[in-house]
Amino acid sequence: MKTSIATVSLSGMLPSKLTAIASAGFDGFELFENDLLYFDGAPKTVRSMATDLGLAIYLYQPFRDFEGVSPAQLDQNLERARRKFDVMHALGVDTMLVCSNVSSNVIRDDRLAIDQLGALAELARQAGVVIAYEALAWGAHVNSYRHAWQYVKAVNSPHLGLGLDSFHTLSIGDDLTELASIPGEKLAFLQVADAPLRKMDVLEWSRHYRCFPGQGDLDVTRFVATALAAGYRGPLSLEIFNDGFRAAPADSTAKDGIRSLRSLESQVRDVLVDDKAARGLDTLTSLPPAPAAIDLQFLEFAVDANARVTLTTWLEKLGFLRMGRHRSKDVTLFQHGRASIILNAEPDSFASAFFMHHGVSLCASAFRVPSANDTVTRASQVGYARFEGRVGPNERNVPAVLAPDQSLFYLVDELPNAPTLFESDFHLTDIDGPTQTGPITAVDHVALSVPGGSLERWALFFRSVFGFQAEHSVVLHDPYGQIQSQAIRSHDGSVRIVLNASVDPRTIHSETISAYKGSGLNHVAFRTDDITLAVRRLEGDGVPILRIPQSYYNDIAARFGLNEAFVDTLRKHNILYDRDASGGEFLHAYTAQVDHRFFFELVERRGGYDGYGAPNASVRLAAQSALRS
Amino acid sequence: MKTSIATVSLSGMLPSKLTAIASAGFDGFELFENDLLYFDGAPKTVRSMATDLGLAIYLYQPFRDFEGVSPAQLDQNLERARRKFDVMHALGVDTMLVCSNVSSNVIRDDRLAIDQLGALAELARQAGVVIAYEALAWGAHVNSYRHAWQYVKAVNSPHLGLGLDSFHTLSIGDDLTELASIPGEKLAFLQVADAPLRKMDVLEWSRHYRCFPGQGDLDVTRFVATALAAGYRGPLSLEIFNDGFRAAPADSTAKDGIRSLRSLESQVRDVLVDDKAARGLDTLTSLPPAPAAIDLQFLEFAVDANARVTLTTWLEKLGFLRMGRHRSKDVTLFQHGRASIILNAEPDSFASAFFMHHGVSLCASAFRVPSANDTVTRASQVGYARFEGRVGPNERNVPAVLAPDQSLFYLVDELPNAPTLFESDFHLTDIDGPTQTGPITAVDHVALSVPGGSLERWALFFRSVFGFQAEHSVVLHDPYGQIQSQAIRSHDGSVRIVLNASVDPRTIHSETISAYKGSGLNHVAFRTDDITLAVRRLEGDGVPILRIPQSYYNDIAARFGLNEAFVDTLRKHNILYDRDASGGEFLHAYTAQVDHRFFFELVERRGGYDGYGAPNASVRLAAQSALRS
Repeated sequence: MKTSIATVSLSGMLPSKLTAIASAGFDGFELFENDLLYFDGAPKTVRSMATDLGLAIYLYQPFRDFEGVSPAQLDQNLERARRKFDVMHALGVDTMLVCSNVSSNVIRDDRLAIDQLGALAELARQAGVVIAYEALAWGAHVNSYRHAWQYVKAVNSPHLGLGLDSFHTLSIGDDLTELASIPGEKLAFLQVADAPLRKMDVLEWSRHYRCFPGQGDLDVTRFVATALAAGYRGPLSLEIFNDGFRAAPADSTAKDGIRSLRSLESQVRDVLVDDKAARGLDTLTSLPPAPAAIDLQFLEFAVDANARVTLTTWLEKLGFLRMGRHRSKDVTLFQHGRASIILNAEPDSFASAFFMHHGVSLCASAFRVPSANDTVTRASQVGYARFEGRVGPNERNVPAVLAPDQSLFYLVDELPNAPTLFESDFHLTDIDGPTQTGPITAVDHVALSVPGGSLERWALFFRSVFGFQAEHSVVLHDPYGQIQSQAIRSHDGSVRIVLNASVDPRTIHSETISAYKGSGLNHVAFRTDDITLAVRRLEGDGVPILRIPQSYYNDIAARFGLNEAFVDTLRKHNILYDRDASGGEFLHAYTAQVDHRFFFELVERRGGYDGYGAPNASVRLAAQSALRS
Repeated sequence: MKTSIATVSLSGMLPSKLTAIASAGFDGFELFENDLLYFDGAPKTVRSMATDLGLAIYLYQPFRDFEGVSPAQLDQNLERARRKFDVMHALGVDTMLVCSNVSSNVIRDDRLAIDQLGALAELARQAGVVIAYEALAWGAHVNSYRHAWQYVKAVNSPHLGLGLDSFHTLSIGDDLTELASIPGEKLAFLQVADAPLRKMDVLEWSRHYRCFPGQGDLDVTRFVATALAAGYRGPLSLEIFNDGFRAAPADSTAKDGIRSLRSLESQVRDVLVDDKAARGLDTLTSLPPAPAAIDLQFLEFAVDANARVTLTTWLEKLGFLRMGRHRSKDVTLFQHGRASIILNAEPDSFASAFFMHHGVSLCASAFRVPSANDTVTRASQVGYARFEGRVGPNERNVPAVLAPDQSLFYLVDELPNAPTLFESDFHLTDIDGPTQTGPITAVDHVALSVPGGSLERWALFFRSVFGFQAEHSVVLHDPYGQIQSQAIRSHDGSVRIVLNASVDPRTIHSETISAYKGSGLNHVAFRTDDITLAVRRLEGDGVPILRIPQSYYNDIAARFGLNEAFVDTLRKHNILYDRDASGGEFLHAYTAQVDHRFFFELVERRGGYDGYGAPNASVRLAAQSALRS
């Protein structure tokens, strides 16, 4: 499909918006009236700017409060429309969006509205343009696509079609059945926007919280698939009102926009294929599939000589064994159970550059996938750059993708019987030595601190490249502010990432990313089958465990009705506790912070508990705060 | 009244919260359960901390979802209450807040709930404590104080009283008539919170947008007056959930809290006096009245030698005359109509310190009031520090108050027949010379850029010290983000201040305060009786006027149906236009920026227009952006 974005979705002045839209790779755009108003030049100048950038102007928008008015007002409105048609001719755009009337004075008479839209269609016919009539979710009389469609059908003019907007339909939970039956040629325009579910006034929700498809909770895929199956053949156009986008640089927002559309198209394609719907398939981008299975292979830290000593000590106390040394680089491999951690101190490397910028930090993660090439190709077709690192003799060239914070995600596939990455690239010194058992079995999840307002950017990355799922975001309370937290996971939970962002820039806490000059690791959670044993062993080995306030234990004892001996054990080892509705239990403990940056967590999941102990986040954050003050 | 604040209103850990509460001057506090939970010490330690700081613990809160439950659940809830009573004994607190049940499983049976609350009251009697039962606005069955009062009345125990919270009652627009008739001894606790009006879910509104009384739109004064007239004699306690407060330093939030309560008490006193209600009066703080009349006397800029030259040139081009020189300081007075501007270049002064910090900036404003002493006394009793400047021989000692950004507000009163401030402190060189006429008649309003999240702090300052009124805040769109804007004015509109704050810290625009390292002047608007004449004269004198995009004029022509000649005049002089519902008109134009910092505006008000041309803010911001890019 042709890709488009409304200029209102981006920050800045019109010329820089258009440059950003062209650079990101869109085919065209919707011109928002105010952008023209604030541009100190004639419409024909905008037209030639667009032409020079290779961009089509698909839509001029919006025209408001047209129908359901008095005869005198109708005359004024038609005159207003005439003037706008002149502007459209100068711009070289042939479609205008007309939103359903939101005025409290609207006359609630369908016959009248249809007649008036008929008059507008006639005017549009004379001017050689098309009207896309769209129901706003807060329209005073018309607020569903079904009601708008009644009007369009009744007017029955090739110059009046239906404008669709996924937000306006999905936000009110409207049914898509009728949409499937609307003739494709009557669908004049298709705008798409996602949004996180919020309990609030729909107008406020729309104006401030929209986001790109794949960043929110609405089923935009099903909506677009339905429109395509009905025969819609126009552009797919993003129209996003978002407080964060308004303040973010237009370039990076536009790039995320095109990523969102490519990923959306590919999902729509999957839905149409599943539905055995042939119509629309040919217009859709196809991407290599997201990996069917995925695992965390290793986490790689950028260190210098000092930080290597510090982290090595930590890892050894955590029971990790030094398993190998890289054949050609200053890179060391540690393992414990299925958890692998690499310390990279190679000078003049990606890691050393990362270290210089961020200090000791997580510079790369590696995912094991069925086809590394497929996943990297998918990433680059979605719009995430491939990274090509320096490769030594006898080393494998591991494909990698650059994440939003410019850290790397390596993709590793290992053929049966072929040497593993570790075997080919490392001298595995201890491979035949004793392999320890427990207490750690694997990495349970990785928590990243990301800048405020960038949760959506990260969610799009993981969802579009790896096909991960996002849970609803939750707000955690730190003593010095709020943290928005969103968990992202692979379908089967084999890889779990938690994204944390400060809501207020003044909030200084352990989730703060300022020290990282960008994103950074917050903590790595290791899984264990016996947390009491694990904490006891770690404490014995000198790992400092975060002390939990004693009142916490009185509270959980009362809250969950726990027996005293059990609570005593938890209290003694500073283990936190949570239980879900179906009785699944989560036991977890935290280490002190490493280098005032990140920390480790031990988690034991019992009986199918699937969360991250969010109710305990506040007590953990408070305990960490107490240490700092 | 005794003053109190809930610990949940402040950021940080419990010990620093208590220090902030004590320093601000509160008599006591409500202890929020989580603050105790996160404190790594026993309840008795909290008790002695409070005692050492001279603070009473007035309330332990909250206890949730008690009533309307099954018999088995009731037993558990009573057991939970028993444990909390033990904690209360250790804390030395005798009142516990119980909120109305919000669970969707609540049994909607008033008789059952009353019986269960009766059982709780009996337990409270045995423990020697009191329950304050409070209706939450989103309570599942009980959501009004009237419903809660039915329960309390029916139980009829001295150990069960009604807990009141202004937000829960005012947010749902509930009637206060019944409150007036509740016996005072049945009112167990009184929490106060204000909030700006918002169209949103009441729970979300309450959790994130509450603010101190005098910072929002609710009639907290009337609510408290009603409770006092009914005979309430307990403490007045702030309970604020606010995203900004959660991230702001506890000290300054606590200080604003006590200012809010003192001002509230004084307003409540006025209401009771007006109502001729004697009950409650004796418990209330009395402040000197806010000034009955107020005028802007002068604006004072901190400058160095260079900036003096720059600003002098600007002022002269704007038609200001140099009217005098200060008798002992390097301070110059300019006047035009009733607008007076002072340039202060005195070394080693308040102004020079301000200049060092902020560069060329507005360091002081002066208000003419009936009694400067009354107003300064009022300010200091509310909690704003008085500033004492250096005074030269034969100079008047002008009392001043420190504003939230540490700039000064001078208070000037001039007795009839006594020399004016300008006469006593200045050599008025040109006083007998020609006084120019027009185009500027006075200062219309002053717009200040304040840091994001500090609108409430500033609103409280102007409202509590000067008795100003606040209008609803509006959101203005800059090309690079949103600006929250709130107008504050004296009762008769003689003094008008507009406060602007960036919503997103990334937003870089003319409202940005970063360059000021604090708050700063955004612009000064001068009033004129003939804006076309004024702009023409200023342009003739070389004042650069902000160019407005031409499409703007096509738009207003269509939008307001203006005649062509009129629009041509506006266009020619880059004058913006707005019209209110009753036909009042606002014509205004802007100068270029002075030193990339602030700018001037010319405004003409016709036919009682009372706003600030907010619909034109976006085009002005865009035009300024275009100049920078």
